[in-house]
Amino acid sequence: MDIKNAITQIAKGAVVAARKLSRVPTTSKNDVLLQMADGLLRRRDFLLAENNKDVVQAKKSGLTTAMLDRLTLKDATIAAMAQGLREVAALPDPVGKVTSMWRRPNGLLVGRMRIPLGVIGIIYESRPNVTVDAAALCLKAGNAVILRGGSEAINSNLAIASILQEVLRKSPVPAQAVQIIPMVEREAVSAMLQLDEYIDLIIPRGGEELIRAVVAQSKIPVIKHYKGVCHIFVDAQANMEMAVDICFNAKVQRPGVCNAMETLLVHNDIASEFLPQVAEKLKKAGVLLKGCEKTRTILKNIEAATEDDWYAEYLDLILAVKVVENIDEAIAHIEKYGSLHTESIITKDYANAQKFLNEVNSSTVLVNASTRFSDGFELGLGAEIGISTTKLHAFGPMGLEELTTTKFIIYGNGQVRT
Amino acid sequence: MDIKNAITQIAKGAVVAARKLSRVPTTSKNDVLLQMADGLLRRRDFLLAENNKDVVQAKKSGLTTAMLDRLTLKDATIAAMAQGLREVAALPDPVGKVTSMWRRPNGLLVGRMRIPLGVIGIIYESRPNVTVDAAALCLKAGNAVILRGGSEAINSNLAIASILQEVLRKSPVPAQAVQIIPMVEREAVSAMLQLDEYIDLIIPRGGEELIRAVVAQSKIPVIKHYKGVCHIFVDAQANMEMAVDICFNAKVQRPGVCNAMETLLVHNDIASEFLPQVAEKLKKAGVLLKGCEKTRTILKNIEAATEDDWYAEYLDLILAVKVVENIDEAIAHIEKYGSLHTESIITKDYANAQKFLNEVNSSTVLVNASTRFSDGFELGLGAEIGISTTKLHAFGPMGLEELTTTKFIIYGNGQVRT
Repeated sequence: MDIKNAITQIAKGAVVAARKLSRVPTTSKNDVLLQMADGLLRRRDFLLAENNKDVVQAKKSGLTTAMLDRLTLKDATIAAMAQGLREVAALPDPVGKVTSMWRRPNGLLVGRMRIPLGVIGIIYESRPNVTVDAAALCLKAGNAVILRGGSEAINSNLAIASILQEVLRKSPVPAQAVQIIPMVEREAVSAMLQLDEYIDLIIPRGGEELIRAVVAQSKIPVIKHYKGVCHIFVDAQANMEMAVDICFNAKVQRPGVCNAMETLLVHNDIASEFLPQVAEKLKKAGVLLKGCEKTRTILKNIEAATEDDWYAEYLDLILAVKVVENIDEAIAHIEKYGSLHTESIITKDYANAQKFLNEVNSSTVLVNASTRFSDGFELGLGAEIGISTTKLHAFGPMGLEELTTTKFIIYGNGQVRT
Repeated sequence: MDIKNAITQIAKGAVVAARKLSRVPTTSKNDVLLQMADGLLRRRDFLLAENNKDVVQAKKSGLTTAMLDRLTLKDATIAAMAQGLREVAALPDPVGKVTSMWRRPNGLLVGRMRIPLGVIGIIYESRPNVTVDAAALCLKAGNAVILRGGSEAINSNLAIASILQEVLRKSPVPAQAVQIIPMVEREAVSAMLQLDEYIDLIIPRGGEELIRAVVAQSKIPVIKHYKGVCHIFVDAQANMEMAVDICFNAKVQRPGVCNAMETLLVHNDIASEFLPQVAEKLKKAGVLLKGCEKTRTILKNIEAATEDDWYAEYLDLILAVKVVENIDEAIAHIEKYGSLHTESIITKDYANAQKFLNEVNSSTVLVNASTRFSDGFELGLGAEIGISTTKLHAFGPMGLEELTTTKFIIYGNGQVRT
């Protein structure tokens, strides 16, 4: 059977499974998730053996150490995957929640009820734990999921899928609610992205290159963010110590993630006092600074930032620094160079705090807190399936609710329209 | 200048305008809408004269009577457009509304605030009143709008646009917040649909053919419904009189719209009593019935329904009728042949009412009420920019809120992530 046909069969199966799954009660979905957790722990040896095949192959093909690290399963990774499943089981089920209800003058009672989206396709790179996380979140929100991991993790992913499906086959949840694309060919992804008749949403998880390739090909709506060029603006009236701590946290705590700070904007009035303090702390942590002209008159011996630096998502211990005249220049800079991801202002000024919150239309806007809080768990969503910088459907970190939509439900007693 | 460049300039202008507009206070937006209403009434003669150019041309090119009717402006149409603008001015502004707010254990106060989507493209057919309606709703929700009406209405649309822009030029709302594509070439639409860098959402308004053409070409997310194949299921336990009235209303009150009933499903236990009653009333109104085999043993002399009839959106005084064994068969029929638009159950049975509401995942699901209520105004949204049967972003009738998204706003006092 050719790849296109095979993928179409997978997608059709997912549609049927999604319909059944949308009616499965919460308790059954939770039971399934808990059994999956047990299954992963019980089949630990099998998982490690299959994963080792991928690791051996990856070493042969010269994968980078970082990628090898992400690919390799250990006892701790398996325990974490099982724990993740248990946490999703403990989350409230968004399906069936009536988010609001009101009565019309003619007596109709009109409400909006959360329902699953249907079939979700997840396209990701080497981490096999995404297979478990994404499957759990989609399943809990009542969606069938089609998973397409990186070819370098194919044995690991198939092993995980076989464990999950063993549970599904003995449960009220149809086995085709969680499917993995077994072919490693790129053609399989291309074929999947054409199936807008069956798949409701695509979520790519990985680097900018992967995401751009998915968007370029997809006929299905894609929720994504290309990059996170996050800014902190230290205002003229700022608690200096707080500003230093927040900037340090936002840059250094985990520099390789999308909600780390990439550009620091500092008000001119505070720059000569603040910049040396923050620079000292950052430099101790090994951060390389690149500055605008004014910054370089205050901090000697740092590199000049070029136009490209203002657009850069370093994902590394590098920080671009710019001195601005006022909050309007800061907001204009963010508007021009930002990625609509996450921005924070450090200020004691009430009006500026409100102005920044209101006028910066990035997906997450903070006052006096680290950009690192732009994360589904940290915001209290209970989970995170991804972060969106597209404004349609979801904007910012996405939890379980973002894997649902709402339908109108209407209780009448004979109303007709006049 | 070639068309592609011209459209790109329009879209770039819209992006700049959208940013400014997102910060314009509600009172200023409302003032502008009220002045636009006055402007349309004051420039009535100019509007009618420009519209007449389109009408004369349309008659020459042999437009159908129905299309001519939609194209022709009259005093009453202009008054209705002005009234529509006043009603939008009176609606609450969704922008800035904080839809929820919660405190995290670390003290962060996290909320979601409604913000405009950005730039919206509206593609529609002959009705010039769409120009005014769509512009008003987009503007009120803080979005810049690019309007592309049918070429047969170009003089009318340009006249309307010139009146609206006269108001904008003297207001705090940038003139490029409302733009009309002045070129009649199809290439202009194709060029517009490629500009995903500048345009956030496309809403096509028109027939299925127009919508399919837009979807096929667009790189920008499209919110749409292809058709409304709406069902009413009359259950075994139903108030017979109520069922007849609702079916009559859903089919006859306005057969040419997407929320009219196209297929009637009747429980076997009630069919021989109910069908003759409803058929008599429908036939008096000139409705042509097409039935399944069982229906035709009860109602003699009606046409046989073919497989195609179950998929049909007649938009006319035609109704497909099928007798089903039980509610499960009704739901399965809707799942197979439906368009996810609107379905209603007529029943006295509590469990079946709840089952239908929960299991039918169309965008609007009713109990004991006419499908004709699936409409933004009737549901209390205050307005309607369109109806979506795509589950992403909006599902069902869309009001002002659906022209916005939410960002996370976070109030901290020095929090860093550990």
